[in-house]
Amino acid sequence: MINITVPTLILNEARCRYNIKVMTDKAHSHGIKLRPHFKTHQSLEIGRWFRSEGVAAITVSSVKMAQYFASDGWEEITIAFPVNIRQIDTINELARKVKLNLLVSSLATPVLLEKELKEAVDVYIEVDCGSNRSGFRYDNIDELKAAKEAIIKAPLLNLKGYYSHAGHTYSARSKDDILRISKEAKENFLSLRQIDGDNLEFCWGDTPSCSVWKSFEGINALSPGNFVFYDVMQTQIGACAYKDIAVALGCPVVSKKKEVLEICVHGGAIHFSKDSLEVDGQTIFGVPVAHDTWEPLSGAFVRAISQEHGIVKLSPSDYKKYEVGDVMYILPIHSCLTAEAIGTYMIAQGQLIGHMSKKSRD
Amino acid sequence: MINITVPTLILNEARCRYNIKVMTDKAHSHGIKLRPHFKTHQSLEIGRWFRSEGVAAITVSSVKMAQYFASDGWEEITIAFPVNIRQIDTINELARKVKLNLLVSSLATPVLLEKELKEAVDVYIEVDCGSNRSGFRYDNIDELKAAKEAIIKAPLLNLKGYYSHAGHTYSARSKDDILRISKEAKENFLSLRQIDGDNLEFCWGDTPSCSVWKSFEGINALSPGNFVFYDVMQTQIGACAYKDIAVALGCPVVSKKKEVLEICVHGGAIHFSKDSLEVDGQTIFGVPVAHDTWEPLSGAFVRAISQEHGIVKLSPSDYKKYEVGDVMYILPIHSCLTAEAIGTYMIAQGQLIGHMSKKSRD
Repeated sequence: MINITVPTLILNEARCRYNIKVMTDKAHSHGIKLRPHFKTHQSLEIGRWFRSEGVAAITVSSVKMAQYFASDGWEEITIAFPVNIRQIDTINELARKVKLNLLVSSLATPVLLEKELKEAVDVYIEVDCGSNRSGFRYDNIDELKAAKEAIIKAPLLNLKGYYSHAGHTYSARSKDDILRISKEAKENFLSLRQIDGDNLEFCWGDTPSCSVWKSFEGINALSPGNFVFYDVMQTQIGACAYKDIAVALGCPVVSKKKEVLEICVHGGAIHFSKDSLEVDGQTIFGVPVAHDTWEPLSGAFVRAISQEHGIVKLSPSDYKKYEVGDVMYILPIHSCLTAEAIGTYMIAQGQLIGHMSKKSRD
Repeated sequence: MINITVPTLILNEARCRYNIKVMTDKAHSHGIKLRPHFKTHQSLEIGRWFRSEGVAAITVSSVKMAQYFASDGWEEITIAFPVNIRQIDTINELARKVKLNLLVSSLATPVLLEKELKEAVDVYIEVDCGSNRSGFRYDNIDELKAAKEAIIKAPLLNLKGYYSHAGHTYSARSKDDILRISKEAKENFLSLRQIDGDNLEFCWGDTPSCSVWKSFEGINALSPGNFVFYDVMQTQIGACAYKDIAVALGCPVVSKKKEVLEICVHGGAIHFSKDSLEVDGQTIFGVPVAHDTWEPLSGAFVRAISQEHGIVKLSPSDYKKYEVGDVMYILPIHSCLTAEAIGTYMIAQGQLIGHMSKKSRD
């Protein structure tokens, strides 16, 4: 039996393995390489579930995460974050051990890399297709061409292709929104085929578009991450249903306040993260669910969180069902950050499986 | 010299020790007991800086944190969080070792405690003076009296007093706001003296009011926490000045985008936390500062963060000063959560000091 004494991240293994299978099957049936992003789960064990579905190349968001997965035998790893040249020693170490793919997101980077690298690496040019995060803007053709030339001139850099994360699909609030936003972003991305990109890999990764697209024409590789668990945010975006969400935080009930039908749980910002959503004008920090089905409790939501406290608003009938000392299951708004904050998963029978953040952060 | 390769929390030891001294002196000069909240720093080393100022009793936000500080010789610890009865085994263990003060925040708790405790403990009745978080509402006299009776009836519970965290002072945006909000909250709190509270301790803890009050009449003990570091949020609330902030995150610069004068740093939600502030209609996630003085760079702010990325907006002149490979110092919005996320402090000369979250979270 599961014995929850502190906020505990429960992983529904069947749902998680199903989500993995759906995405690996989808990539396979479209003849596209899947380079799943492991920043969501950050778990060697869950990584092995991907491996058993035939996945051989992965994506991570930091040098440290690359080291972590390299330690478990992953041999091709893309660090999908602009090269942090201050970590060059570890990058060199990794490049000796695995096939390392790096992201060039600025003109300064190829020059710095060529100076500091001791091994050859493959690089993607990172492209900003409208997300306004990192990477060259898709319409800055001068810089894109200059980046390409700098890479070609650098003997230790091999241009592998272009990489883009269309993070602005997260502003979608329906499947149609996702399709509209991602269609434009993809057109922006593929416009780079014009600058002599025919033989290069175009790698694309965001869970909303990878979840809803039926055609991937022009894209050669996918690197979504969040789909492994999904979360409340992805239901709001239109990328999944509640029944697809594979993690819930089990939170001890510590007090009740009948005047406002609110329950205080042990489960706060250091467990959920502070990510929130606006739903019908209300900011919510999590969605309480039934223990057995993980179906949302009608009208219930986490109204506020502070460092350790979660304040949960309930309907009158649900309020009566929870007593101090019970456990409430709550779906996280953003599963990547909740998993990072908790650092361990509990699966059926109370078995624990690990997460990178359980280790030292250095 | 400090060598920053990954996001690194720099602690200005002089400012931190000064903040500790100001608050301990203030409590001392008013004849009030200081029970500082250690949830902000969660560091044995920083705890010892308090000890050297004469502090003997502390406050924490979890059972685990109580264990952590008990291991360093702290002998009186208040767990300022509604009792999580599912942790009763650890609570019993602690109660054998230290003078443990617990919070009763619900009528169910004294009954559960009396059934499960193996040692006598002191308890505070937690009072909600308007913050709408945990605790009995100050005006729910029936429940407050019932809680008191239940505690008095329980042989293992000794009623120590009343505890309140007026967290709604965080909505203040000036010193006057703090004074107005906290005055009303304090009046609500002290109204409980009417229910036979003359010999009981009234313990009060929020950094904004403890920072700006000049009189503490009626209050017997203080338990603020954030003042040890302060942060950008406290400057906006009106509780401190920028020169009081004792922590900054050192973030490697990884790319630049000249079209929008934005810089991407390694420093995202898993480093800063997702806490944000609205300033002049703009949501900000951190404030970039000069390396030497930690004075805010004019017009600069962290515009967006995702898991590992921080996107920083700069003035044209500051944009030119930062190159890929440099380090940018950024003040956190909420230092408690940033410290928790990073899990280590770097002080002068690159020396590292520890934080509880560096260890296993179980």
